[in-house]
Formats: sequence, structure tokens, C-alpha cells
Amino acid sequence: MIASEIEIDIRFSETDAMGVVWHGNYLKFFEDGREAFGKTFGLEYLKIFDHGYFTPIVKSEIDHKAPVYYGQAIKVITRYVPTKSAKIQFEYEVVNQTTGEVCAIGKTMQVFLDKETRTLELITPDFYREWKKRNQV
Amino acid sequence: MIASEIEIDIRFSETDAMGVVWHGNYLKFFEDGREAFGKTFGLEYLKIFDHGYFTPIVKSEIDHKAPVYYGQAIKVITRYVPTKSAKIQFEYEVVNQTTGEVCAIGKTMQVFLDKETRTLELITPDFYREWKKRNQV
Amino acid sequence: MIASEIEIDIRFSETDAMGVVWHGNYLKFFEDGREAFGKTFGLEYLKIFDHGYFTPIVKSEIDHKAPVYYGQAIKVITRYVPTKSAKIQFEYEVVNQTTGEVCAIGKTMQVFLDKETRTLELITPDFYREWKKRNQV
Amino acid sequence: MIASEIEIDIRFSETDAMGVVWHGNYLKFFEDGREAFGKTFGLEYLKIFDHGYFTPIVKSEIDHKAPVYYGQAIKVITRYVPTKSAKIQFEYEVVNQTTGEVCAIGKTMQVFLDKETRTLELITPDFYREWKKRNQV
Repeated sequence: MIASEIEIDIRFSETDAMGVVWHGNYLKFFEDGREAFGKTFGLEYLKIFDHGYFTPIVKSEIDHKAPVYYGQAIKVITRYVPTKSAKIQFEYEVVNQTTGEVCAIGKTMQVFLDKETRTLELITPDFYREWKKRNQV
Repeated sequence: MIASEIEIDIRFSETDAMGVVWHGNYLKFFEDGREAFGKTFGLEYLKIFDHGYFTPIVKSEIDHKAPVYYGQAIKVITRYVPTKSAKIQFEYEVVNQTTGEVCAIGKTMQVFLDKETRTLELITPDFYREWKKRNQV
Repeated sequence: MIASEIEIDIRFSETDAMGVVWHGNYLKFFEDGREAFGKTFGLEYLKIFDHGYFTPIVKSEIDHKAPVYYGQAIKVITRYVPTKSAKIQFEYEVVNQTTGEVCAIGKTMQVFLDKETRTLELITPDFYREWKKRNQV
Repeated sequence: MIASEIEIDIRFSETDAMGVVWHGNYLKFFEDGREAFGKTFGLEYLKIFDHGYFTPIVKSEIDHKAPVYYGQAIKVITRYVPTKSAKIQFEYEVVNQTTGEVCAIGKTMQVFLDKETRTLELITPDFYREWKKRNQV
């Protein structure tokens, strides 16, 4: 299993009137997690784009376990979830660095769209197949 | 089954560099859907607050079916999902009004937190039990 | 002077941990104001785009006069500010509909970029000159 | 003059359908700049809060000089602007690290609100007067 980690300071603008991070912002933290994963393992968004694909999110899930307050920092652990289909799947664990608690877990699924035609690619693209082989996933 | 509908014009700021609505913004559309539902059926956030509770989202899911572009409008259908536990559950259907397509579906689950102690309320609050009875859900 | 008005309900996600609308969100309200103005006076973003131009914001200002809380609605008044140069300028007044107070005022300036070359258009585009004549501004 | 610097990677969600960072997101970059300044010079938001004050933004300005694209990083330089009144003022310079260009400049002004009464503090708070003296501003 391959995974990456990134630490994020909470922005004041990410809180809401309950005084905690607004639930929808976790999708931004997951995005930060994917970016960090991409940099570490050579699967950056722009590299995929250069291979001819957009990789939009088609499914996402968040389970909130505990609130996060302004002034706290979080760590996002992003784990690659192997799949035989032409998809990119991740699981996320968000840890409140101040309390040590897991504050959220989540999942995303991405597909490959041809960047010119915007049609769905049903076959695993060659570059991705090679990337999987290199990373043994 | 009780449900409400609301139409939303896409903000330019809600699009991303793929030219479509950024996936995370659907949680804002679901929020707009809940607001509309609350207004229609008397379950507004501030009314719940007056009864002594916060109702944070503890779980959310989005399935994207088709992209939405700037210049298009969407309709969010918000359906109440009955449950015996002390929770508020909704299902959402987002329809692209320009194309007629369902562009996303989703779910959210909310719990009741005592607004003073921020502890989880495990028993269905009285006002909510009465609301459910009145609405036969 | 030509102007338009639009009413907006505050989204919970637009509040911050001070319990009020986060200051940066007023730029979204100004955007809503411009959209409403565009619809009313035939100067929609996509119409301008069809004439060959992007019109990015190059300058914006916000003066906050009073806070806005969740549960309140605002009205954005968008006034066109005439200019001889190849620019689109607006002034905004945001009124808290619940209290009657002016809660913010602001300004934006947009320029014309050729949508293919992304170079700045220094001469007022024909379609815009005609639009100004028609609207006597 | 005292100033701080922070580098920020652009989030995909911060771009818009023009393919560049949406103009309103610069207020988030300014916020990141203030946070970095606060950490460096001991003027953190939560420290101010502990002294009894909220410090909301009452005025902000952004001048955009050049676009920033996804995949690029920016540097925000935050300069403290001395004032005799009970205010906190900053100037910002956003540099595109990929091109070396200044892509935006801006300003913000904050006031002191008593955190209990939410009334405006017209006299410079003691802790802030001492902070200014220590930092010779």
C-alpha cells in the first residue's frame, strides 16, 4: 500500500458559525492530500493532463468523527486504493494534530476523460498501467 | 415521502479550470437544498438551534453523473429519508435545467449536538419527534 | 445611471467562526450583483464571451460597514460607473434586509482580454460601445 | 518596516473556468499572509482574541497585475503599515514564483471589536501599543 501525508493549517475562512471547519472544506483537504500524493509518487494532475486526460472526481464520501477548530492543524493521510478498472481511488484519514484524534475519513474515485472529446476512457491508459506496475499496486 | 425543490444559477466562482462546476461545490448546493426544505417544512436550522441543538453534518456522499457548465442552472431536489434514530437524513438529486440530465445525486446525515455542551444527543429530541409525527415521516 | 438589484440568502458555509459572513464572500455577492445586472441590461458574461472577450476583474475594493449573520438576507445594488476607457466598472451597495443597514459598499473594474490571445484590448470593443450608446452611459 | 513571506501552492479548486485563480481567492492568500506575519511577529489572531478582541477586516483592496495558473506557486509578502489609530493595516505583494512576476498587490485594514460586546474599540489596546513599541512600528 502506498500513501502520503501532508500537514495543513486551518484557514479562518474555512470555519463556520459553529466555530468549526465547515464540513464541505474537507473535500479541499482531500484535494491537498491528492496533490501531495501526486508529487510524492509522480502522479501529478498536470502529468496526467499531458498524457491526454482530465481525471474528474465522480464519487466522494466524507465521514466526520470530530470537529476541528481554528488554530488547530490537521494531517491528511492519502492512501492509494488499487483497482483493476480505469479509475483512480483514494482513501483519506484526517488527523487533528492538536488533539491526536482522527477527525474525518473519506474516499474519492476519479475517472479518465479524454481531454479533447471529454469522453470516458474505459480502458486503463498505458501510462497509468505502467505507473501501477512501477508502484506495484 | 416529503421533498422540496430549489433552482440555483451557477456562479462563475463555482467553476474550475476544467470549465465545469468544481465537485466540492455540490455540498453547497445540498446545503441550499436543505435550506429550501427547512423553509418549506418548518425545519429551519435556526428553529432547531432555538430548540437547543446544532445539527452538524457527520456524513456526506456525492455521485457525479454529468458536468455542469457556467451559464447553466440546476435544480436541487431534497428528499427527507425517515430514520428511527436521532438523525436527520436527506437524499439529493441535482438536475441540470439546461440539459435535463441528472448531474449528481447525494446523501447527508446530521446528528443533534447540545448547543451548550456540544455532546451528542442519542435520543430523538421532542420537537423533532413531533415534527416527524406532523409530517408523517 | 443604470443599476440592478438582487436579493441573496446567506449560506451557512459563508459564515466564519466570528458568527458572521466571512469578508471575502462579499466578492461572491458582487459577482451575483454583476450577473443580475448583466441579465437585466444585456451585458451577460457569456454574451461578452461570444463577442470574443474575457472580462477579468483587475481591481476590487470592499468597505465593510456592519456584520451580516446567518439567517439574514442581503440585497446587492449594482450600479454601472461610466468610463471612457475600455473597462467595465461597477459600484456595489450591500444592504442587510433584516436590519435595513448598509453593510458593505465596494467597487470592481474589469478589462477586456482577447479570448484567444489573452492580450489586453485597449480600444473599447464595438459591441460594448454600442451597448453604452443604447443605455446612454 | 516589518514583513513576512509565505509560499502557497495553488489549489485546483481555486481556479475558475478562465483557467486562472479566481480573483476572490486572493483574499484567502492575504489571509495566509496575515497568519504567517502573525506567527513570525507574535501577533496571532488567537493571541489577540485572548486579549479580548476580534479584529475583523473592514476594508480590503486587490489590484491584479497578471494571472496565476494551476500548477504554479505564489509567494505572499505581507508588510505591516504603521498607523496611529486603533487599526491593523497590511500591504500585500503576491509574486508568481513560476514566472517571477508580481501578480497582485493589495491592502487590508482591521479594527478591534470587544469580543463580548462587539463594540468598536477606538483607543489602541495596551497589548497592541506594547507590541508596536517592541517592533518599533
